Amino acid sequence: MRVNGIGVGRAVAVGPVKRMPDPLPEPSETATHDGEDAEIARTRSALQQVSAELTDRGNRAGGDAKNVLDAQALMAEDPTLVDDVIARIKAGRTGQRAVHEAFLEFQVMLVGLGGYMAERAADLGDVSQRVIARLTGVPAPGVPESDKPFILVARDLAPADTALLDLDKVQALITRDGGPTSHTAILARARSIPAIVGVGSTDELTNDRMVIADASDGSILLDPSDDEVADAKRRIEERRAAANAPITPGALADGTPVQLLANLGSPKDAAKAAELGAEGVGLFRTEFLFLDSSSAPTVQQQKEQYVALLKAFPGKKVVVRALDAGADKPLAFLNDSEEENPALGLRGLRVLRAKEDILREQLTALVEAAKETEAKLWVMAPMVSEPEESEYFTSLAHELGVEVAGSMVEVPSAALLAGQILETSDFVSIGTNDLTQYTLAADRLLASVGHFQDPWHPAVLRLVAEVGKAGAESGKSVGICGEAAADPALAVVLVGLGAKSLSMTPAALADVRAELLTVTMEQAQARAQAALRASSAAAAREAASAAAEPANA
Amino acid sequence: MRVNGIGVGRAVAVGPVKRMPDPLPEPSETATHDGEDAEIARTRSALQQVSAELTDRGNRAGGDAKNVLDAQALMAEDPTLVDDVIARIKAGRTGQRAVHEAFLEFQVMLVGLGGYMAERAADLGDVSQRVIARLTGVPAPGVPESDKPFILVARDLAPADTALLDLDKVQALITRDGGPTSHTAILARARSIPAIVGVGSTDELTNDRMVIADASDGSILLDPSDDEVADAKRRIEERRAAANAPITPGALADGTPVQLLANLGSPKDAAKAAELGAEGVGLFRTEFLFLDSSSAPTVQQQKEQYVALLKAFPGKKVVVRALDAGADKPLAFLNDSEEENPALGLRGLRVLRAKEDILREQLTALVEAAKETEAKLWVMAPMVSEPEESEYFTSLAHELGVEVAGSMVEVPSAALLAGQILETSDFVSIGTNDLTQYTLAADRLLASVGHFQDPWHPAVLRLVAEVGKAGAESGKSVGICGEAAADPALAVVLVGLGAKSLSMTPAALADVRAELLTVTMEQAQARAQAALRASSAAAAREAASAAAEPANA
Repeated sequence: MRVNGIGVGRAVAVGPVKRMPDPLPEPSETATHDGEDAEIARTRSALQQVSAELTDRGNRAGGDAKNVLDAQALMAEDPTLVDDVIARIKAGRTGQRAVHEAFLEFQVMLVGLGGYMAERAADLGDVSQRVIARLTGVPAPGVPESDKPFILVARDLAPADTALLDLDKVQALITRDGGPTSHTAILARARSIPAIVGVGSTDELTNDRMVIADASDGSILLDPSDDEVADAKRRIEERRAAANAPITPGALADGTPVQLLANLGSPKDAAKAAELGAEGVGLFRTEFLFLDSSSAPTVQQQKEQYVALLKAFPGKKVVVRALDAGADKPLAFLNDSEEENPALGLRGLRVLRAKEDILREQLTALVEAAKETEAKLWVMAPMVSEPEESEYFTSLAHELGVEVAGSMVEVPSAALLAGQILETSDFVSIGTNDLTQYTLAADRLLASVGHFQDPWHPAVLRLVAEVGKAGAESGKSVGICGEAAADPALAVVLVGLGAKSLSMTPAALADVRAELLTVTMEQAQARAQAALRASSAAAAREAASAAAEPANA
Repeated sequence: MRVNGIGVGRAVAVGPVKRMPDPLPEPSETATHDGEDAEIARTRSALQQVSAELTDRGNRAGGDAKNVLDAQALMAEDPTLVDDVIARIKAGRTGQRAVHEAFLEFQVMLVGLGGYMAERAADLGDVSQRVIARLTGVPAPGVPESDKPFILVARDLAPADTALLDLDKVQALITRDGGPTSHTAILARARSIPAIVGVGSTDELTNDRMVIADASDGSILLDPSDDEVADAKRRIEERRAAANAPITPGALADGTPVQLLANLGSPKDAAKAAELGAEGVGLFRTEFLFLDSSSAPTVQQQKEQYVALLKAFPGKKVVVRALDAGADKPLAFLNDSEEENPALGLRGLRVLRAKEDILREQLTALVEAAKETEAKLWVMAPMVSEPEESEYFTSLAHELGVEVAGSMVEVPSAALLAGQILETSDFVSIGTNDLTQYTLAADRLLASVGHFQDPWHPAVLRLVAEVGKAGAESGKSVGICGEAAADPALAVVLVGLGAKSLSMTPAALADVRAELLTVTMEQAQARAQAALRASSAAAAREAASAAAEPANA
């Protein structure tokens, strides 16, 4: 028996299923308990046990995880919360309902306080779920623990789930929901774990059942025969051997070069990227420098980090994105927390322009860092919407000594006016994640509209084609730096649409490099045209695949 | 001397300036008072005076405004707040700082509670501003009062400001900020008041200075001569006469018909729209039926309202938009209030599809209402992103007896795939407000990115052109139902891009009708092409205007 979903990566895995329990239903408001004292004792005990369990897990996990778990352990025994729970039991609620209400009220208060406190609300919710699970005798939601390797099956994975996941044990991820840019897919790519997302129903994938998960075609084979297991293990071994083959620069079968670059979020990942054959960096995110501070870091502080990054890529291109404040989470000293729709707010270049000092300091630090290294520094602005903004940014960057300054294309208007933006930008780089979000008007972090967040969508591909065309006409560089570039089949289509470089999570480089070597530019263009004519993301994926079949070649 | 901005409408006004005072600066945290008792007495007195003033204004205003003002009067004397203010004065703060802090803390609490209480936070902020103004001896921010007609000059107008504005006294609106789709512009169009927005600096427009505001070219003439005043009054009289001329169906100078339709939000506005020459309704918003309820109205309740609307347009087209839950504010029973970016969330057709019963009931009520009247019912779905959604909606609508079913084009992907959407939709209607918001990735209700919200933006015009082309190829109707259609110069451009009908606030019909009669289709297309090639909204506006000059014809 087979189940199918959307494969992430090309790898294969064999192993037994471990299911992540679903979220608990809300405890009944009208249920009553048998006796106040017994209910209080039972509930106190559950709270203490959960606290002890969290402390224990924290001690085993260590590091950042320990801090989170220790804080959660304290929450489970917080006197104010415990008193509130007991008062609710005395008012007639069951222990589980009392815990639900008391913790929820506290969560709402935390959210109301905003910022750091609001982020803690999720941790509190997790504690509440654990206590309720214990009181109702069901498995606690969250990541299963196991001593042996397994294939994780879940409804979907949230960042909080994966923080505690022992990735050495997880051989593959299978999720019922989610698309190719879901958190699960991003994690899978970053860690080179095969994943199959959006499976639809995982009912057949029961605990301990043996499966072969094949990300290359998105299939899950249940109860494989010995021969099938042997075949899968042979393929896993072949991939391991291929990964150790000498690394060649990115190119198509006909020799057309396609620069293969790395997306990085911190200088400490630079060495690993270079080792995996990154020909440079296509997107260096600088938010990490600003996240923990209540004000911008100094020029000197920034410069040290940039030097650490640039040193890993002597003679190579390193594209640094100017601070994209508000990209994922707001920065206290830059973003307005009161925005109704922060994704459509004063973020990226818009806020840098309002606080030009910060932009000037960042550009200055970058220029100084570049002088001390051999890397070729390129700098680009996030959230450019129109030509005037591109002109503003590149003029300022050139004035401060940046030699190559460009624009991100992640807002639909920038793609539509790419020709005019390229008149003032030295290059453009397409951020497919945000471009998809805005083109489909669907929040890329919101599960209920997650099915729209697919860079295979022909509307997105049409915008990429516009930019590719403008790049060809201007002779300037068009790159891709969104998740899309890490999908080997889509990478081919993007090259067919005019992308000259692809930047991705370093773990995806090998698969993309291998796939590009199987097609000529003419074939890539044929697949791109087939995908462009489709009417949905799924149809585009199929059309590109059909155009790749030898019979249609 | 002249000052220039963006004109809204074509009308002219003459009168003295009344300025709306700017928001107050935050009272100093470090300033100290001379003596505790005197400061407390002074502050108590200011709170009482503001309370009395608000009660008095409420009595004069009556209606809904009285409720708001009475509630505000109570806030100014709320014992908890007053005690908090006094405690802060005792801790060394000045009265104004104490009021600022105490009210702000309460506002934050209200916002944290969410929903109705959060909306009250703005009212509390207004009370705080009034008290601080009185304590610091400056005019209170807010709408000026006057017995005589005047021209209102403000930084910008918020909905709260205009609720209390006596529009019979206001002859024109002039704002420093804001664009052609700002709240000020929308209000001005709906009430047929000339407006000039985005003036940049209003420093010269001092209180009581005489000005002529000419919305047709966005100019403000200061200290006009008697001849200039006489000329302006003659033009005002001419417009009045023209408005009373017989109404002809919308058409270009060469006879090409352009249907001129009304945007309506309630059946009670239907008669007035018909009187102003609306050839039907291009956008009937149905949210009003759902806003006040915690559940959807019944089929019978809906039907009564639809009959009232359709009866006003016998033999004419009436385009009803299916419930657009989440368009402006979320509906409690449909929308998830926890969305981080509701504009990019589960709204419009997305949520109707998740709650199909509500959609089925609405379509059934519409079909039943249409049977009892002579109007031609068309129904369209909001927030269609891709062809599959258009197919879903039109199939369901046809199944339930709707004869003509179409899609709104307000998401960039829908414009990019308009050809495929028209394969399954009977027609499309472009919602330029949301289309602009998503194309520029700028929240249309957020002031800090308000300058992006301009439907003249060439990126938006390019998408409109795509839809117009798809309409021409399919032979199906392409309409416009956003604010853009109410701007006479832009209306010409939209027709040049392929729009066959324009739907607008009824008060704008006369100006648009008159403007269309001045151009041939060839001229409209020439202006459209000029605007398309521009690199910014302002440049597009200028390019269209230059293409309209006789020398360039």
